[in-house]
Amino acid sequence: MKAYALLGGPRQLWPKNIKEILTAAQRNGDLIIGVDRGSFLLEELNIIPDLAIGDFDSLKQPELSQIEATVKDVRYSNPVKDLTDSELMIQTVFKDYYVSDLTLLGATGGRIDHFLVNLFMFLNPAIRQFANQITLIDCQNKIKFFDAGQYKVRKENDYPYFGVAGLESVKNLNILGARYLLENFSSLYPRIFASNEFLPNTHSFNLKFNSGLVAVIFSKDIDRFYNI
Amino acid sequence: MKAYALLGGPRQLWPKNIKEILTAAQRNGDLIIGVDRGSFLLEELNIIPDLAIGDFDSLKQPELSQIEATVKDVRYSNPVKDLTDSELMIQTVFKDYYVSDLTLLGATGGRIDHFLVNLFMFLNPAIRQFANQITLIDCQNKIKFFDAGQYKVRKENDYPYFGVAGLESVKNLNILGARYLLENFSSLYPRIFASNEFLPNTHSFNLKFNSGLVAVIFSKDIDRFYNI
Repeated sequence: MKAYALLGGPRQLWPKNIKEILTAAQRNGDLIIGVDRGSFLLEELNIIPDLAIGDFDSLKQPELSQIEATVKDVRYSNPVKDLTDSELMIQTVFKDYYVSDLTLLGATGGRIDHFLVNLFMFLNPAIRQFANQITLIDCQNKIKFFDAGQYKVRKENDYPYFGVAGLESVKNLNILGARYLLENFSSLYPRIFASNEFLPNTHSFNLKFNSGLVAVIFSKDIDRFYNI
Repeated sequence: MKAYALLGGPRQLWPKNIKEILTAAQRNGDLIIGVDRGSFLLEELNIIPDLAIGDFDSLKQPELSQIEATVKDVRYSNPVKDLTDSELMIQTVFKDYYVSDLTLLGATGGRIDHFLVNLFMFLNPAIRQFANQITLIDCQNKIKFFDAGQYKVRKENDYPYFGVAGLESVKNLNILGARYLLENFSSLYPRIFASNEFLPNTHSFNLKFNSGLVAVIFSKDIDRFYNI
């Protein structure tokens, strides 16, 4: 089973077709999750989530009551906690719901500390084990995560650019078969190689590294944000 | 001398009062810099930058001609290069213009690999030496950088929250005198402690750590982005 989770990031950075993505998912029987305020934002889109997780301290009482009246599985997190709401959600969907892959929406923008938590939680060993099954999408970016190994990374439709981000120390990082090459690069701290492109008439590049966690950020330019 | 640089990030994430910030800066005789497309965006705001740096490959020929006709100091970077345009700009303003501090605008949002470059370039030793003199501002975040040491971090007006981000491995990180405390935390990889708050009637918290580079992200909630 696939899963789609909406977090509390600003509406204007959501993918333009978020409503279609979620409606199609629900029709397919995929799992829909709201994380904290994301639960209420889903209901504003007329999508009742299957699961809502959070401390819900950003919701007004009538908003929370609406979630409790409509969502089958509501799980309350402790505001002072070891795992963030997003981390708790990831553990829950993979361990209790046995989903095969998870798409995170509403995970970018807004308060930058929140966004960085959503990006760097993948280094937490409790979450890292699921990193290669999780994709993060907003209006102009799609992010996938890779643990040490060798990969043929396929071009994503509509995203002309990609960046490679070592989220921690990395050993012998190689980007081959792309416009800008990198060979056996090692670093003790995060390094980001931005604005790379696929070669004409190719549909993948080769990514290889011996240690570290790497995010590949597929991106496109857009004229301005949309109002959803 | 103070300096203000506009990068190419999306307009809608700029501080709402960017025009007032830059007009006041120019009146004070501060240095105004455009980085790549940021040079043209400044001119669209009717602000002629003192310095423009970039490979300018995102500008159309008449746009670049306008920059060359109006800006006193135009420096061209090599598109295949060791330093990004932002890094080259930082070196130039501190080494050639001897500025005392620098505010980065237009450094957030948009293509996430670009934003991460702007945030993690501070780990590059060539840039890190200036980290404590640089502030990054957008419509709802203000970011300052700290190298190992002990600091009283003052509350910033209008920003009720703060997060503390270890951008690399960190040793004995302490957040004291704040709503959520952290004592002697060490990590081999980046960790972000989000959504902290100042204690009532206090105007600072204590930040202490023995190694690593730490970003303090001051933030506020906003209803939606503005059109500038």
